[in-house]
Amino acid sequence: MQHKTQTEKTMESTPTNVTIKGILGMLLANLDDNNKKRLISLGMGDPTAFSCFTTTNVAENAVVDALNSQKFNGYSPTVGLLQTRRAIGEYLSQNLPYKLSPDDVFVTAGCTQAIEIAISILATPNANILVPRPGFPIYELCAAFRNVEIRHFDLLPENGWEVDLDAVDALADQNTVAIVIINPGNPCGNVYSYQHLKKIAETAKKHKIVVIADEVYGHLAFGANPFVPMGVFGSMVPVLTLGSLSKRWIVPGWRLGWFVTTDPNGMFKNAKTVERLKKYFDICGGPATFIQAAVPQILKETSDTFFTRTLNILKHSSDLCVKKIEDIPCLTCPTKPQGSMAMMVKLNVSLLKDINNDIDFCFKLAKEESVILLPGLTVGLKNWVRITFAAEPSSLEEALDRVKSFYHRHSYEPNGSF
Amino acid sequence: MQHKTQTEKTMESTPTNVTIKGILGMLLANLDDNNKKRLISLGMGDPTAFSCFTTTNVAENAVVDALNSQKFNGYSPTVGLLQTRRAIGEYLSQNLPYKLSPDDVFVTAGCTQAIEIAISILATPNANILVPRPGFPIYELCAAFRNVEIRHFDLLPENGWEVDLDAVDALADQNTVAIVIINPGNPCGNVYSYQHLKKIAETAKKHKIVVIADEVYGHLAFGANPFVPMGVFGSMVPVLTLGSLSKRWIVPGWRLGWFVTTDPNGMFKNAKTVERLKKYFDICGGPATFIQAAVPQILKETSDTFFTRTLNILKHSSDLCVKKIEDIPCLTCPTKPQGSMAMMVKLNVSLLKDINNDIDFCFKLAKEESVILLPGLTVGLKNWVRITFAAEPSSLEEALDRVKSFYHRHSYEPNGSF
Repeated sequence: MQHKTQTEKTMESTPTNVTIKGILGMLLANLDDNNKKRLISLGMGDPTAFSCFTTTNVAENAVVDALNSQKFNGYSPTVGLLQTRRAIGEYLSQNLPYKLSPDDVFVTAGCTQAIEIAISILATPNANILVPRPGFPIYELCAAFRNVEIRHFDLLPENGWEVDLDAVDALADQNTVAIVIINPGNPCGNVYSYQHLKKIAETAKKHKIVVIADEVYGHLAFGANPFVPMGVFGSMVPVLTLGSLSKRWIVPGWRLGWFVTTDPNGMFKNAKTVERLKKYFDICGGPATFIQAAVPQILKETSDTFFTRTLNILKHSSDLCVKKIEDIPCLTCPTKPQGSMAMMVKLNVSLLKDINNDIDFCFKLAKEESVILLPGLTVGLKNWVRITFAAEPSSLEEALDRVKSFYHRHSYEPNGSF
Repeated sequence: MQHKTQTEKTMESTPTNVTIKGILGMLLANLDDNNKKRLISLGMGDPTAFSCFTTTNVAENAVVDALNSQKFNGYSPTVGLLQTRRAIGEYLSQNLPYKLSPDDVFVTAGCTQAIEIAISILATPNANILVPRPGFPIYELCAAFRNVEIRHFDLLPENGWEVDLDAVDALADQNTVAIVIINPGNPCGNVYSYQHLKKIAETAKKHKIVVIADEVYGHLAFGANPFVPMGVFGSMVPVLTLGSLSKRWIVPGWRLGWFVTTDPNGMFKNAKTVERLKKYFDICGGPATFIQAAVPQILKETSDTFFTRTLNILKHSSDLCVKKIEDIPCLTCPTKPQGSMAMMVKLNVSLLKDINNDIDFCFKLAKEESVILLPGLTVGLKNWVRITFAAEPSSLEEALDRVKSFYHRHSYEPNGSF
C-alpha cells in the first residue's frame, strides 16, 4: 500500500548522532570468526560483564523480599514510591550542606531516563544546552529528538579534564538553559575538586543557567580528589542531580535512577513547575515498583566493605591500564583516571603505517585481536580512544598486551621504536 | 538569585490536561477524616488493590529465578533482550495470520512508555493524531508535551462504544498521522467485533494513517465478542500494537510492556525508520533486564486456569456492577461491558437537587461515602462516571450501595422516586 510521505519522511529523519551502542555493535560485527582469541570488550561501561564485579547480597535480597511480599505488584505514583523518594533524599543529603525532602526526588528508569527528563523539561523553542567534549552521546541524541541545540565546551586533558570555563563564557547566550557536568567523569575518569566545581557553579550563576549534574558514577572516586556532589553549590545555582544504583551497586540492568532538584532556593519548587514535572513523569514508564520498594533497605544496609572492595579493584585496574599504556608508543594517557570506570587515551596515528584514525584503529584491532575499544569520535574526540577499565585485571592485561602486539605489527618500525 | 525568565517560563508552561492520577489525588484529599466508612476506590485501574486479584506464582518465580541467576544485572540492549523480543513476538503471533519476528518487538517500561514512544516517533511539525472520546488521558498529555495536535472522534455509547467512523472521516486531513484504538476498551469496557475492527482498518487505509492499537487489556474479554487483535489487519494498514503484562498478569507495577510493529508490509522496516526507532529507544530507560529475562517463561508457562479465573471474576463483578446500577436512578449503563476492567455510566444530574456535574458528584461522594469514582470529564465525557469493576465483589456491592444512599440523600424526592 502507498503510505503518506509525511509520516514516512519523519520516520526516516533519524538524528545523525553516532551512539556508543551503535559503534560497539558494528565493532562486534567486525570480529574475525576465524580468530581463536577470546573476545575482550573494554568498550562498554557495564562492569557486570566481568565476574569480579558483582552486586551485594543485600541488594539482591532486598529486591527478592519486596517481590515476595506481593505488596508491590501494583502501580507506584509516577514520581516514585514515597519511601523510595525519602530514602534517596536522605542518602544524597549525607553529602550536602542542606536536607533534601522526598519532594525533591523523582525516581527514574535508570540515569538514562533522568537525562531524557532533564533535557525534555528544559527544552524551549531555540533553547541550547552546553555539554562537555568529550562527553556522553545520550545527551546529544536526546537533544536531537527534543529539538534542543547542543553547544560543546572542551574538557582540558592536560588539566585533569577540567572544564574550559572560558569556552563556557564564550558559548553561553540568552537561549542557554543548562550546562551538563559529568563527575566522576565518563569518558575521562576525572574527579573534580571542590574548587573547580565551585568555579563551574559561579560560571553557571553568571549566565543564569541550570547545572545538570550527571553523578551516575557518584562516589566512584579512588584518586586524590574526593567525590563532591554538585548539589553542594545548590544554594548558588539550581542543580538537577541525576544518579542511579547502576554503577555504585553494579546493577545497571535494574534501571533504578533518580532525578533530584538539589535546589534549596526552590526555583523548581514553584507550583506550576512541580505540576509540569509531575505531569511529565505521568507519561514516562518508571522503574518496577518492587525494585523501588527495595531501595530504602539497599541504601541503608549496604556495607562499606562492599564499596571499598569495588574502589580497590577500580584503582588497581586503572593503575594497571595506565602502566600498560606507557608501553604502547601510539597511546598516551594525559591524566591518570581518578574515578568512574573509563579513561581517554590519545592515539598518535602518525606512528602507524596503515591506520587512518581512531575508527580505523578500533575496527582493525577488533578484527585482528578480538579486543574492543571505543573510538574517541563516538564521545566527541577524534584520534582518541576510550578504555573501560572496569574489567578483570587479567583480562585488562591480556587485552593491552594484544593492543601492544597490534601496535608493533602496524608501526613503521618492525620493533615499534624509531 | 534571579533566574532566567525563559527557563522559568518554560518550566511553568504546564499542559493543562487533567490527569486521572491528578483527579484521584484530589478526590483522596477530599475524603472526610471523620467518616468511619472504609475507603473503597473504584477510581483507578489497578486490580492489585484487591486481594482477589493476584498474579500467578509462575510469574513471580520466573522473576526471582532470573534475579537469582545473577546473569541479568547488566544492561540489556535498549530495544530489549533478544529472547524477550522473540517470546513476545511468538505470543502475539498466536492470534495473527502472520508471524512476527523478534525485530518487530521493542520492550518498554509498561504500556505507558509504549504510548509515549508511539506518539513521539510519529510527531512531525503540524501532525495531528485522532483519539477516542472517551479515552485515556495519557495520549493527550503526551501529545501536549510533543506538540502534536489531538483530534477527538466519539465512541458511540448506544452502539457498544463503537468508533464513529463518519467523525473519523471528517477529522482526518493531510497532517493526520495516526488513529488510536483502545480495545478491549478503557474506559468503556468495549470489545470490538472483527467486522468493526475491519471497518476501522479500512478507514485508516483510506486516510493513509497508522493505527496505534492499545491492547493493554488484550485477552481480557468476557462477553459475546472474542478479543481480536488489530494486528490481524496489519496487511491492510500499518499497525503499532502496544501492550504489557500489567493487566492480564495483574502486575502493573512490573513495568513490562511492548511496542510492536504489526506491519507485514514493512512500512516500519525501512532501514532509516528502524535506525530512528532504535535511537529513540537509546534515550529511554527500559524495564529491568531480569524482569525481561523472565518473560519467555511467564508467557509460555502461565496456565489457562489462571486466565480463566481472572475472566470469571471480571465477568461476575461487571455483571454485579450493571445490576446494582439499575437500582440507582441517576446512573445509566448504556452498554454492558464486555472486557477490560472499567465501564462508563451516564449521570443524570437533573435528578439531583444539589449536584452540578460529574466532578461535583464524585467529590461529594468521596467526602460523604468514602467511595471514589472517576469523573467522566477526566476521560473526556462530562456528566459520565467511570467505574472500575476490577474489585472484590463484596467491595463493589458495598460501594454501590453507598452510591445508592448518596443518590437518595441528594435526589429531589426523599425516597428517590418521582
